[in-house]
Amino acid sequence: MHILVTNDDGIQAPGILALAQSMRTLGRVTVLAPDRNWSASGHVKTLHRPLRVREVTLPDGTTGFASDGAPSDCVALALLGFTETLDVVVSGINPHANISHDVTYSGTVTAAMEAAITGLPGIAFSLDSPENFRDPLDFSAAAAAARRVVDRAMREHLPRGVLLNVNVPYGPESELKGYMITRQGLRVYRDRLDKRLDPRGWPYYWIGGEVPTGVIEEGTDFGALSQGYVSITPLQLDLTAYQSMDLIKKWKWD
Amino acid sequence: MHILVTNDDGIQAPGILALAQSMRTLGRVTVLAPDRNWSASGHVKTLHRPLRVREVTLPDGTTGFASDGAPSDCVALALLGFTETLDVVVSGINPHANISHDVTYSGTVTAAMEAAITGLPGIAFSLDSPENFRDPLDFSAAAAAARRVVDRAMREHLPRGVLLNVNVPYGPESELKGYMITRQGLRVYRDRLDKRLDPRGWPYYWIGGEVPTGVIEEGTDFGALSQGYVSITPLQLDLTAYQSMDLIKKWKWD
Repeated sequence: MHILVTNDDGIQAPGILALAQSMRTLGRVTVLAPDRNWSASGHVKTLHRPLRVREVTLPDGTTGFASDGAPSDCVALALLGFTETLDVVVSGINPHANISHDVTYSGTVTAAMEAAITGLPGIAFSLDSPENFRDPLDFSAAAAAARRVVDRAMREHLPRGVLLNVNVPYGPESELKGYMITRQGLRVYRDRLDKRLDPRGWPYYWIGGEVPTGVIEEGTDFGALSQGYVSITPLQLDLTAYQSMDLIKKWKWD
Repeated sequence: MHILVTNDDGIQAPGILALAQSMRTLGRVTVLAPDRNWSASGHVKTLHRPLRVREVTLPDGTTGFASDGAPSDCVALALLGFTETLDVVVSGINPHANISHDVTYSGTVTAAMEAAITGLPGIAFSLDSPENFRDPLDFSAAAAAARRVVDRAMREHLPRGVLLNVNVPYGPESELKGYMITRQGLRVYRDRLDKRLDPRGWPYYWIGGEVPTGVIEEGTDFGALSQGYVSITPLQLDLTAYQSMDLIKKWKWD
């Protein structure tokens, strides 16, 4: 099994090292990830400029590839032939949870989307670390959960076009309650706009405010995490609002 | 009615001018758009740096605001208080169709998503211009269709959390066959990786290949366009693959 490991925090982040080491117990691993942080960068396809890739040495002495593209570009590069044929794409481990609407912003999740679009299994991993937690984060439970999920997905065959968005509670592996298959829950964003003046008196704007929270609901990603379970949300890329189609058809269009 | 007009091609693109002029016949318009092209840039939330906004004069002499953020940042800025209270967010007119999986990459569509996340109607407009068409494109039919769709959506009340992805066939308004409510179809990407050497002998990579096409299927965005209809696809942001949940629950998790 040939596994592509990528992330959105950059190839030097501790989360990708933990994921790569965990994946090496399952098969052959290629690490190809951005050379910088692309958090909240969305689903990118870089067509207007060429991409560079350079070989780098990871902190454990293994070799990886760093690209100046986005996480989804790294996946596209690999799938279009930069690497040998792949069996699965994994991304993470993101140091914060990616739940609810985060999935459309998240570079971690959009990397897995890029795989799913081409028909390959894509699995995104995020750690629900406590707010204001200081490094170093302990990725060991998430790395063990990642191994379990990828092993299951490959043995049982993830349906084509489906990706998995996996969030792991923070803490030691022994405290994980188990695995829960969930639906996307509801995020509560608490953004606020901060207007400031630069030294020359010109305004600039920060999107600030508090860290987003979520609605704790049974059966959702956020609900599972709040109960100590690993949340596994299967996602697909047909966004059609089927339940609204009939209503909108009845609007006066002639 | 207060309408925010944005796009992903940049505030100086002809498509946004056509859309702003069309929207002015329906209500008060604020134009706040990126100062450069953000095509295929995905759903972005810029948190790591402040955003600038400057007043600019559009080609028709009206005033707009240009930001150095992404399309979704422009919408966030407006909704977080840069502008007065808004009733609807429209984006476009993109000079190429945004169908199928394009919706996750498209800055035009993710701008409308950003509105939907906060509960505001968001509507994205794209023109299905012919491949290799040279400027200037004729946006008049798309602008007329945009007026029609926004008028309908506001009078009939678009369900909360739903956005519309509208694609208009290229040609004169008189040749539009009508409006069709569609589902997201299937894109066929034909990307290819071009490896080249720079003047110093180092490799670089272009994601190239042919323009993507689509599967012509009854009831889809691409199907409607191919028959000469304006395609209106209602989208929502719950990506859960509900049909796969039971299957994945049965995998051996204990």
